[in-house]
Amino acid sequence: MSKWVYSFGADSCDGDASMRNLLGGKGANLAEMSSIGLPVPPGFTITTEVCTYYYDHANSYPERLRDEVSTALKNIETETGRLFGDAKNPLLLSVRSGARASMPGMMDTVLNLGLNDKTAAGMATATGDARFVYDSYRRFIQMYGDVVMDVDHGLFEDLLDDLKMAEGVFQDTDLSAAALQTLTESYKQLVLEESGEAFPQDPMEQLWGAVGAVFASWMNNRAITYRKLNDIPAAWGTAVNIQAMVFGNMGNDCATGVAFTRNPSNGENLFYGEFLVNAQGEDVVAGIRTPLPLTTRARIDGGVDGKSLEEEMPEVFAQLDGVRTRLENHYGDMQDLEFTVEKNKLYMLQTRAGKRTAEAALKIAVDMAAEGLISQEQAVARIDPASLDQLLHPTLDPNAERVCLARGLPASPGAASGKIALTADQAEARAASGEQVILVRVETSPEDIHGMHAAAGILTARGGMTSHAAVVARGMGRACVSGAGDVRIDLKSGSVHIGETQLKDGDIITIDGSVGEIYNGEIDKIQPQLSGSFETVMGWADKFRRMRVRTNAETPADARTAREFGAEGIGLCRTEHMFFDEDRIVPMRQMIMAVEESGRKQALDILLPMQKRDFAELFSIMAGLPVTIRLLDPPLHEFLPHSDEELAEVAKATGVSVELARQRALRLKESNPMLGHRGCRLAITYPEICAMQARAIFEAAVEVAASGPAPIPEIMVPLAGTAKEIEICRDIIDSAAAEVFAESGQKIDYLVGTMVELPRAAICADQLGEAAEFFSFGTNDLTQTALGISRDDAANFMHAYEEQGIYHTDPFVSIDVEGVGELVKMGVEGGRKARADIKLGICGEHGGDPKSIHFCETVALDYVSCSPFRVPIARLAAAQAALAKKD
Amino acid sequence: MSKWVYSFGADSCDGDASMRNLLGGKGANLAEMSSIGLPVPPGFTITTEVCTYYYDHANSYPERLRDEVSTALKNIETETGRLFGDAKNPLLLSVRSGARASMPGMMDTVLNLGLNDKTAAGMATATGDARFVYDSYRRFIQMYGDVVMDVDHGLFEDLLDDLKMAEGVFQDTDLSAAALQTLTESYKQLVLEESGEAFPQDPMEQLWGAVGAVFASWMNNRAITYRKLNDIPAAWGTAVNIQAMVFGNMGNDCATGVAFTRNPSNGENLFYGEFLVNAQGEDVVAGIRTPLPLTTRARIDGGVDGKSLEEEMPEVFAQLDGVRTRLENHYGDMQDLEFTVEKNKLYMLQTRAGKRTAEAALKIAVDMAAEGLISQEQAVARIDPASLDQLLHPTLDPNAERVCLARGLPASPGAASGKIALTADQAEARAASGEQVILVRVETSPEDIHGMHAAAGILTARGGMTSHAAVVARGMGRACVSGAGDVRIDLKSGSVHIGETQLKDGDIITIDGSVGEIYNGEIDKIQPQLSGSFETVMGWADKFRRMRVRTNAETPADARTAREFGAEGIGLCRTEHMFFDEDRIVPMRQMIMAVEESGRKQALDILLPMQKRDFAELFSIMAGLPVTIRLLDPPLHEFLPHSDEELAEVAKATGVSVELARQRALRLKESNPMLGHRGCRLAITYPEICAMQARAIFEAAVEVAASGPAPIPEIMVPLAGTAKEIEICRDIIDSAAAEVFAESGQKIDYLVGTMVELPRAAICADQLGEAAEFFSFGTNDLTQTALGISRDDAANFMHAYEEQGIYHTDPFVSIDVEGVGELVKMGVEGGRKARADIKLGICGEHGGDPKSIHFCETVALDYVSCSPFRVPIARLAAAQAALAKKD
Repeated sequence: MSKWVYSFGADSCDGDASMRNLLGGKGANLAEMSSIGLPVPPGFTITTEVCTYYYDHANSYPERLRDEVSTALKNIETETGRLFGDAKNPLLLSVRSGARASMPGMMDTVLNLGLNDKTAAGMATATGDARFVYDSYRRFIQMYGDVVMDVDHGLFEDLLDDLKMAEGVFQDTDLSAAALQTLTESYKQLVLEESGEAFPQDPMEQLWGAVGAVFASWMNNRAITYRKLNDIPAAWGTAVNIQAMVFGNMGNDCATGVAFTRNPSNGENLFYGEFLVNAQGEDVVAGIRTPLPLTTRARIDGGVDGKSLEEEMPEVFAQLDGVRTRLENHYGDMQDLEFTVEKNKLYMLQTRAGKRTAEAALKIAVDMAAEGLISQEQAVARIDPASLDQLLHPTLDPNAERVCLARGLPASPGAASGKIALTADQAEARAASGEQVILVRVETSPEDIHGMHAAAGILTARGGMTSHAAVVARGMGRACVSGAGDVRIDLKSGSVHIGETQLKDGDIITIDGSVGEIYNGEIDKIQPQLSGSFETVMGWADKFRRMRVRTNAETPADARTAREFGAEGIGLCRTEHMFFDEDRIVPMRQMIMAVEESGRKQALDILLPMQKRDFAELFSIMAGLPVTIRLLDPPLHEFLPHSDEELAEVAKATGVSVELARQRALRLKESNPMLGHRGCRLAITYPEICAMQARAIFEAAVEVAASGPAPIPEIMVPLAGTAKEIEICRDIIDSAAAEVFAESGQKIDYLVGTMVELPRAAICADQLGEAAEFFSFGTNDLTQTALGISRDDAANFMHAYEEQGIYHTDPFVSIDVEGVGELVKMGVEGGRKARADIKLGICGEHGGDPKSIHFCETVALDYVSCSPFRVPIARLAAAQAALAKKD
Repeated sequence: MSKWVYSFGADSCDGDASMRNLLGGKGANLAEMSSIGLPVPPGFTITTEVCTYYYDHANSYPERLRDEVSTALKNIETETGRLFGDAKNPLLLSVRSGARASMPGMMDTVLNLGLNDKTAAGMATATGDARFVYDSYRRFIQMYGDVVMDVDHGLFEDLLDDLKMAEGVFQDTDLSAAALQTLTESYKQLVLEESGEAFPQDPMEQLWGAVGAVFASWMNNRAITYRKLNDIPAAWGTAVNIQAMVFGNMGNDCATGVAFTRNPSNGENLFYGEFLVNAQGEDVVAGIRTPLPLTTRARIDGGVDGKSLEEEMPEVFAQLDGVRTRLENHYGDMQDLEFTVEKNKLYMLQTRAGKRTAEAALKIAVDMAAEGLISQEQAVARIDPASLDQLLHPTLDPNAERVCLARGLPASPGAASGKIALTADQAEARAASGEQVILVRVETSPEDIHGMHAAAGILTARGGMTSHAAVVARGMGRACVSGAGDVRIDLKSGSVHIGETQLKDGDIITIDGSVGEIYNGEIDKIQPQLSGSFETVMGWADKFRRMRVRTNAETPADARTAREFGAEGIGLCRTEHMFFDEDRIVPMRQMIMAVEESGRKQALDILLPMQKRDFAELFSIMAGLPVTIRLLDPPLHEFLPHSDEELAEVAKATGVSVELARQRALRLKESNPMLGHRGCRLAITYPEICAMQARAIFEAAVEVAASGPAPIPEIMVPLAGTAKEIEICRDIIDSAAAEVFAESGQKIDYLVGTMVELPRAAICADQLGEAAEFFSFGTNDLTQTALGISRDDAANFMHAYEEQGIYHTDPFVSIDVEGVGELVKMGVEGGRKARADIKLGICGEHGGDPKSIHFCETVALDYVSCSPFRVPIARLAAAQAALAKKD
């Protein structure tokens, strides 16, 4: 037989923190606090199961609920020494929602419940503060009328305004007790007129009305939308917390405040909080009066006038400080508290894990582990890996005001401000004269590299997360927002429309590449800092994780950054990105556009020594660590010449007419380049390209091995759908290896594997595994193909898809476990079936996403690979995944 | 213990036709013929297992092989009364390859083996025809030298030419016996000089040399390529057939000929063949002398001078005619025979199933079933479904000469010739004046419809199998070659480059839409004819098949054609194709380009009555059969306005500036339209479109049901990847249904289902099946996504992929069973798990491909759907699949 009601308070306490699902977060913590003897106003919680029952049974309650509520109510009466509805010393109650997951402000609350004409009069006498009582009463009628009886909130405000006019006062607080009492009469009249029912005078009727309203609010539109957005099942339901009211506003021996047990901003182990004497909770938040610091030290450090709580109410403070220690020891985490002091007596109203900055999270975790409050495992598990981004890039000051002009894709993290430059040359010139610049382009191409380098940030109107702009910006560590469709550029007039705003060349904008937003003007930023705590936590993470962490890198700068962040090799070197430089783009284009093998060979001869230098440098930086090199997989449309000038250049290099070059470029244009002549299809049709790259890899490897640790090249065949494609490429690669080894008299170990990025490859993995020594899951393309969604084109509908709960998170951010994840699983199983010791990794953008990394651990991949700045995130997430799996 | 050698002949015969895998096709049929008492020159077959052994054991033979060969050779000697190597009456042998599958001309043959200086001299004496003998000897040396001893064939020809010069003669046949004998000496000298070894005089050495050469030829480049192309495993190996030589050229009592047991061209039950007196097999083929008909009737009908075999050698003819009956009765199929008459004695050299036209195949199958030779099941199983295409469209005369200018995609079957027209208006004008026209465009758009209608065929430089041109042409029954990249059009000068050839407006070309080829000038065509046999076979097929056959159709014309061909409903009505007409394209564009819902609604109000009329017409034609209507899935890039004129038109209709329209069109342009904002993504983001279509469907259904059989609309949600998408669309559809039913007071049954065309949909089919009442596998898109290949862009590499055996057949033609097929299987299993009675079909182009239809039967789909002209093919293939499954 279910128990529907759980009491808490000094005398009786049935619940605890572990019963969050049943009691909701607020109820469970109230029970927990009272069970460890902290001063909590007594109350009880109606469980979430009642909510579920309520919706399953045509909005009715279980049979025994009323009895259980009556019993629990009696407990409160006993403990407080007040009676509910008593005319002399009435018990007042708060009725609050409290779901399993926090849903701030989404559901309804009723305070001061229990007041009626009779109890108000009695209470006025008892407290001697009629103004306070009638103000509470009129607030209660207003709240109850609005929440329970569906009377428009504004109508109460109108009556209040009328009264103030009549009384000739401006502030609510200037109204007299008598005036407020009159107002309660008008309010009751209003309720009757609007709802057709009298405002209930019976406190029990009030109570059940409020409980019903809280349950009903679980299904209001706000709550439904919030749950959709936050992936909270409707079936969870909400609990209802009914608790004795305490008042921080009954005189100068009263106060109310909020506190963090440690500094949530930097993690320092100092009590941190604010309070107001003779005030209600809302007053602290509302900002009408300025709250004062809790501790004297904080007051002095902040140069604040007035008294701290420590000075004002030393005994209460000492008690609160004790609660602080008690709660930290008990929960083993930094807490966010709410308290009220009623006539010098401290009451705890809430505790929960406190939100904190990344910096604070690291320091608190390390400190608490040092203090023995938590284990190193717990410390590692507690840090949100995604929050580390804050530590690695400048972020916008959360308190700074901002006007968002438009949104694009969060292509490269960090925030940057600067003057708009519409061309790369302009960006370079501006930067040279010491200005901060944001380069704004329809899309970027290799010709823009110098401008991108000079700019603090890059904004493009077109292109996805893997566009030229995005990839280059991530490599350079520049902030980038790409594919912002609402950006329209008019080069002639030098003007830019961003959303509804017209700007011009030289105007200042700010972009936040972590979220993809564009703002007007300059916005304050917080610069990143890496503390000792960061290194400590990373060290612990490395101890606990099973999966290796590599990086996606092709430039020496990226590779070095990644090494500094702890990368254990390169998991993806995209060789086509090595050709974005201006001096290489011409032979690259020449190669792509060549009709005959001879033309391609000519271009390849120019490219070979460049590739060899590239690889040699990467091998040296990675000093003996594995380096996965993907064979050329060019996004043709990014490499094709666009302008007449570019065409002329390529035509000249190739020795053909511009017209012929144009024809050829036109022929190479594809309807769906994502699904076109790319990946190993290039190596199959033009084996000489594969041969050149293989030769460059082996020549470089042999050279580097001669003077240092031998590199371990892992050569990756992209976009294979069949074993045969890998076999054909492997033959070419093995031949090149044999040649180079014969020429140099030196051998090195290498692997040939493939990128599993097509559904067919995953499905036929048992065949592909026969031909490949490793699989690297390319989950970007796998997501595009499995879901049939082009990342570059998703902007037009993905927002609606998330909003309507079709995909809860963007599947390009976190791996779609049911669809794409299933393919990865098939790939893993097939691969291991074919080759028990096959090496398995992931190199899509998901390799740096904590949720996806957890998935990778469940299928036991050997490593994840991600962009350099996400390496620490991946190390931490991999450790958490390993710890979670162990549990 | 394996038996390596199988004899055949009158005296001893170990093999039969069922041993094709072991003895190869030729060997098995020779054994079969001799086992049923037909006159076959005695011989033996070395099995294909020896070939496999040979390659597994470093080109060596099994131990007992030599003994078995000796024994078998003795049998021949006994039966022929000649001894191998005997100086007086030598036995001569032929040594021929013979694989399990026919590989014509790919491997080596040696004839006249056993001749040497001694046996030649003896035989010259015995036969009294020294010229014949030395001609045979010199041919043998040449063949053996080339095939076994690797001496260049041309060098023998040189010596022959020298000799003719010296002798002053022009024809080989003018050389005397003495001259030919001299030539054998020069040949032997040549062999010694070139190979370093003497031409072997020992007949046994000759024999083993030839056997080794045949096995070796299994791995020659020609054979390897042929096997790759025809999907023949190398492991099958070839057999070697060694047989006593017989000669049709030893005088006027000798002859040689080829025959079909029935007319292979029209199927008439008449003996059909040709022969030459005193000739070798090659002479019949070489065409130096004109062969004569076998039968007197054929000679008279053909108005041929000379004597038929029936007249020339009545006894031999009677014997041959007996063999004809015997073989047909025995094999139950029309046979293709080779025979030789040596000194009035008939020898059968080969029999095999005869190739025939589609018309002949139908007639022969129906006749043979009537004659009781075969069952109706066998008759149905025997027709190649793909060959029916010949009967439904004009085809090129296979004997007509042709110059292929270039290739494109076989977008719509049939052959057509006509004058080149470069614009639709021109095409219309030309056609109006009675000329045949081929409309040649870069790509077509809805504005070209009138020109396409006027043209006999359509050729486009761009666009795939599902482009506007392809779809409209198939619907209209026009021949079409699309995506022919080597076609370049210069509208200004009115010239067209096709491949290397420059043509102009008004020049005549021919296109073959069944294979995708473009030819210069007019080429003779064969017009299609449907015989009674066709209807008979179709009737039998319908009896035997389990799967239903529907059609893909959206125009009344298509629907009617399909009904005439026996379609049992519509499996795919692509509603977006209903808007290609000129009067609809503007509101369609207006709808696509609208920024606000109001703009879309305005366009939808125009489109609703049009859609309703469309559906009503289809429902009427399909009279109570199911009609699957796919919600709008527009290929945006085909509907976006391109020209300034089109933009102006849309801008005017929408009431916005041309500039704004251009901006909007630019925003709607996608990088990868295949993976873009299409399918149900449109219904999710613009629910009013889905609502309009649902309303049009139900209004039409209710209207049609009022006066005839109630239609069964099956409304299909395209491109779903999740159950949620289907649920959202279903809500809209159900609401529209409820509204229309309430308005009309009439209800009709309908289903809501989805098109499974994304890997995720197949993987999560158990979830989608909860929301969908039917699945239709859209294997076009499923192939594109699973393999990551854009059909429109595959031309650049698919040829190389087929050539290198990566995909044996184009996966867009026949379903890729291992990859895409596996997804279909998952989809079927998941769907049935969610809903045991879920209706399952296929509506990709594979629905009309016989191989793919076989696959559909193995996974037990309920129906296949294909384009109208493929309906008969699908009916037949479905029957064959059902029969094959039963076996």
